Amino acid sequence: MAVGRVTVRRPVISFSPHGQRRKIDALAAEEPLELRVDGRALAVTMRTPGKDVELAHGFLLSEGVIRGLEDISTARFCEGTGPDGQNTYNVLDLALAPGVPAPDVGVERNFYTTSSCGVCGKAALDAVRLKTEFSPAADPCRVGVDVLTKLPDALRAEQKVFASTGGLHAAGLFTSSGELLVVREDVGRHNAVDKVLGWAVMNGRIPLRDHVLMVSGRASFELVQKAAMAGIPVLAAVSAPSSLAAELAEEQGMTLVGFLRGESLNVYTGAERVVEAP
Amino acid sequence: MAVGRVTVRRPVISFSPHGQRRKIDALAAEEPLELRVDGRALAVTMRTPGKDVELAHGFLLSEGVIRGLEDISTARFCEGTGPDGQNTYNVLDLALAPGVPAPDVGVERNFYTTSSCGVCGKAALDAVRLKTEFSPAADPCRVGVDVLTKLPDALRAEQKVFASTGGLHAAGLFTSSGELLVVREDVGRHNAVDKVLGWAVMNGRIPLRDHVLMVSGRASFELVQKAAMAGIPVLAAVSAPSSLAAELAEEQGMTLVGFLRGESLNVYTGAERVVEAP
Repeated sequence: MAVGRVTVRRPVISFSPHGQRRKIDALAAEEPLELRVDGRALAVTMRTPGKDVELAHGFLLSEGVIRGLEDISTARFCEGTGPDGQNTYNVLDLALAPGVPAPDVGVERNFYTTSSCGVCGKAALDAVRLKTEFSPAADPCRVGVDVLTKLPDALRAEQKVFASTGGLHAAGLFTSSGELLVVREDVGRHNAVDKVLGWAVMNGRIPLRDHVLMVSGRASFELVQKAAMAGIPVLAAVSAPSSLAAELAEEQGMTLVGFLRGESLNVYTGAERVVEAP
Repeated sequence: MAVGRVTVRRPVISFSPHGQRRKIDALAAEEPLELRVDGRALAVTMRTPGKDVELAHGFLLSEGVIRGLEDISTARFCEGTGPDGQNTYNVLDLALAPGVPAPDVGVERNFYTTSSCGVCGKAALDAVRLKTEFSPAADPCRVGVDVLTKLPDALRAEQKVFASTGGLHAAGLFTSSGELLVVREDVGRHNAVDKVLGWAVMNGRIPLRDHVLMVSGRASFELVQKAAMAGIPVLAAVSAPSSLAAELAEEQGMTLVGFLRGESLNVYTGAERVVEAP
């Protein structure tokens, strides 16, 4: 095991109408990553190794712990060896810059629950609205339908690990004119997005006004939340959004595009940003 | 909002080469559910409402908190109203039977981390091995290739919400001869599995010897872990497994089937249980 082990080869037996066959298959690597802030464990996520420092920055941005690169002083992998005696590179400790408050750790990490209303979608929406410092609501950017329909192919062309394993989610960051900036893959959909956002943090690009985030699967509440925390005005997904994803996008003044396949797409919220070709 | 709101209707604008069209789309409902054990918050999950009591039972089984229905004394929705003044049915409190130890709450909930080896895949595997009371390793059941290749269609036929929204994961429990027992859908892949396992808990069927769990997407570490905790010997997935999923399945003596599509499938571990038709 070493940094960047994005695939693992394993023997497999394939059955088909033509009989069975032994072969070697490449599987998407999945390993636990423990994120620590100032030495204290904050979260453990199952992720595809690689771009872990990006993942950590994106996760902390998504959680409202940092607002940009200036809120982090150092990031380092902790000592720690696996059964083979080598560093696992699976524990990453980030030190916050002086004056940045330490994050809360707890069950309600992603949103507040109030005993007055149980846990309701409204409470989840409220929590995100309170946390976002870069509301995309006033972003006047426009995106052409012709630009949007080219994004899935552009994303897929960069999915190097998916091509060999068929087992990864991808997220890509584009400008509103369709220029691809970065693609990241991971066994976890939220991790792929965190890696993209972390890339933006580390390159001083937060907030991401005038950008489109494209994801390979569905659009969940969590992904809309992450986009909102980074100030991204447009989230596009190959598959369906959930109900709360659409509610949050509306609440945040974001444009939410779903079923972006071939020449067609659905716009669930913020349709004013989507323009047809002249 | 009410119990069983599995879809939510929203207006949408569809763009295609034929122009744009306004319509009403059904989205898979997503709402937060807070699980409490003896009044103490244990977890919040974003799930599709419905079958929440099953979800809770399956979650607690997966986490090693309970081993069967006898470990739960009561399950009830807490009081708590949303913005519309109605109970959200989003907070569920389970009381453990006398003598059942309360669960740990913490970052390391799913597996132990030891400072001596950082967080490595081996530690994750060890933690599951320690926790499983119903190891599937010795289960002698056999499943025909002809039985396995019929499972995806059987699962899809029962995916009622997916048909209307295109946005849900599904999990189905089958006997080793291919009889379908239960299908559950959810915006979260892990929730769909927890609901199926919870159904089995509530029907006194744990451990699930001689059964096959079929999932609509990929096979992650987490899903193999859940199957192992329920004693299920065969996990089959439409898409790819991750590396750690295959390692855990091997460690647990489980049969892991992936890319189960049409007439073909891959067997990653436990191939002795997969038999070709005579």
